[in-house]
Amino acid sequence: MIQTDICIIGAGPVGLFAVFEAGLLKLRCHLVDALPQVGGQLSEIYPQKPIYDIPGFPEVKAQELVDNLMDQIKPFNPTFTLGERLDKVEKTATGFELRTSDGTEIDCKVVVIAGGLGCFEPRKPPLKEIADFEGKGVSYMVKDPEQFRDKNVILAGGGDSALDWTIELSKIAKKITLVHRNETFRGAPDSADKVFELAKEGKINLLLKSNLASLSGNGKLNSVKVTGADKSEMELEADYLVPLFGLSPKLGPIADWGLSIHKNQIEVNTEDYSTNVPGIYAIGDINTYKGKLKLILCGFHEAALMAQSAFKHIYPDKHLSFKYTTVNGIESF
Amino acid sequence: MIQTDICIIGAGPVGLFAVFEAGLLKLRCHLVDALPQVGGQLSEIYPQKPIYDIPGFPEVKAQELVDNLMDQIKPFNPTFTLGERLDKVEKTATGFELRTSDGTEIDCKVVVIAGGLGCFEPRKPPLKEIADFEGKGVSYMVKDPEQFRDKNVILAGGGDSALDWTIELSKIAKKITLVHRNETFRGAPDSADKVFELAKEGKINLLLKSNLASLSGNGKLNSVKVTGADKSEMELEADYLVPLFGLSPKLGPIADWGLSIHKNQIEVNTEDYSTNVPGIYAIGDINTYKGKLKLILCGFHEAALMAQSAFKHIYPDKHLSFKYTTVNGIESF
Repeated sequence: MIQTDICIIGAGPVGLFAVFEAGLLKLRCHLVDALPQVGGQLSEIYPQKPIYDIPGFPEVKAQELVDNLMDQIKPFNPTFTLGERLDKVEKTATGFELRTSDGTEIDCKVVVIAGGLGCFEPRKPPLKEIADFEGKGVSYMVKDPEQFRDKNVILAGGGDSALDWTIELSKIAKKITLVHRNETFRGAPDSADKVFELAKEGKINLLLKSNLASLSGNGKLNSVKVTGADKSEMELEADYLVPLFGLSPKLGPIADWGLSIHKNQIEVNTEDYSTNVPGIYAIGDINTYKGKLKLILCGFHEAALMAQSAFKHIYPDKHLSFKYTTVNGIESF
Repeated sequence: MIQTDICIIGAGPVGLFAVFEAGLLKLRCHLVDALPQVGGQLSEIYPQKPIYDIPGFPEVKAQELVDNLMDQIKPFNPTFTLGERLDKVEKTATGFELRTSDGTEIDCKVVVIAGGLGCFEPRKPPLKEIADFEGKGVSYMVKDPEQFRDKNVILAGGGDSALDWTIELSKIAKKITLVHRNETFRGAPDSADKVFELAKEGKINLLLKSNLASLSGNGKLNSVKVTGADKSEMELEADYLVPLFGLSPKLGPIADWGLSIHKNQIEVNTEDYSTNVPGIYAIGDINTYKGKLKLILCGFHEAALMAQSAFKHIYPDKHLSFKYTTVNGIESF
């Protein structure tokens, strides 16, 4: 049984920074994440994409931010259980006992849910054979654009991801086809304009009012059938198919904990980001409150206030003196 | 008359980042600061000190963070009025009209107070002649340690700044004397121990239970009289005197605006960091709410929520669609 002060569910950027804020107060943290690596969406979905709104970074690649956060929390020696889903949470006399899908048991005083879009999953096109081609030509995100250099790539979707990757990959792929069921795009007008421009110049193949119909191949994706506006079918050669239909949030076992949930998000108190269950906090994209913005920088703030409150929850009789790292560094806390 | 959407009072890190968040929503910002440069306390008081708790920076020098923030907001072309104090704020039909001590006039729709410790000022020793020597040997902060190399320096105070600078400057000054009215220090025990150690080794001159009595010199500081524990006076040669008695917050004209003030801080709503006066917001160290932590990273969060609310205040009928910089960059907002 792993023993810790705080068990953080979710090792995305906000969960990672919570280790720092807890560490300053000498609270130990253990992190659990269903993904096999830390970083959450940043590492899983867009590691190579630049982020522009992290304060102090005019531009930072998502994975670089995660790496920096790992460096920043290193002095506090957090421990991790990765690639396991949280299955069960039970109240104990001193806090909580957690168990994962693989049977890992964790005993803690405070639980912090920093699960981002929860145990989120990509929305998949409704093709019965798609599972056979996952990892064999079909993927639901672009992790490394280089994978698509000089390849025949079919993208599908009408949001910002589909538009952005159509534009980016058109520079390096052999051939890009974008399949979209409507005539107009949900994504940013500027990006949509650029995609129409690329189609007019013959640099991409744009199939509007079209749908994915079926996939074929022999152990590896080979071609994709698409139904066009006039119900005609056409078969396209393809090395890769990347459906970008967004993520569908799934709270999973979290939904059973008696927490106050509003539209798939956990309601919290903005004083300390506590939930309605004493000892359970929720920070980052998974929580909701009046004015909430799903920004990483907001999760950082939530982590700082949560840590102060968690300290008082764990040590109701201890005095907590607030200090600045500028004066004290991080060792002397 | 300067015309802008948002006038930000205070060009510290939080005021600067507010320009970014407002800029994403295409709101223009003008910043006013009493200090002659941007950066607030970071640039004025501890530009060379490392900060450890900015998310994503395991360590960053205060001035480096300010420089990064200036780079980050550059695309939004903020304008500045520096070295002038805010004197007057008046309500107009469309927002507010502001005037500074030097007569600069600014017309804006929203006012954001990001004044940090307000129009703060250093606490000065009660010596009538001190004003004559300010900038002529007397200063209230260490901006560039190199200034003190091979000089005769008297420091005064008992907090962290006095201790930290005694330790740092003892490495480069010709002679360091630390004058403190008590026998014990308010600063970190580790630092106090180090100062006692330096005194025992004869590396600094430590005068406890002592007070500054008078200054003399001819157009430039020459010597400082100190009253000792036994009421005896001694005259010390000095090139520099640096009293480090902390800052005294002074809300100045802000206190007259009809804002709800609690213990020298402005009360705000955590939904959007608005004050009780519609169109006036307060972010960063100058505001207060339940759970408030005076951390730069919390001010960043406050700036983000403020910007959304300011947009709705300025354009009550426009639809605001929330976008991510990862998808859209900063140009296409």
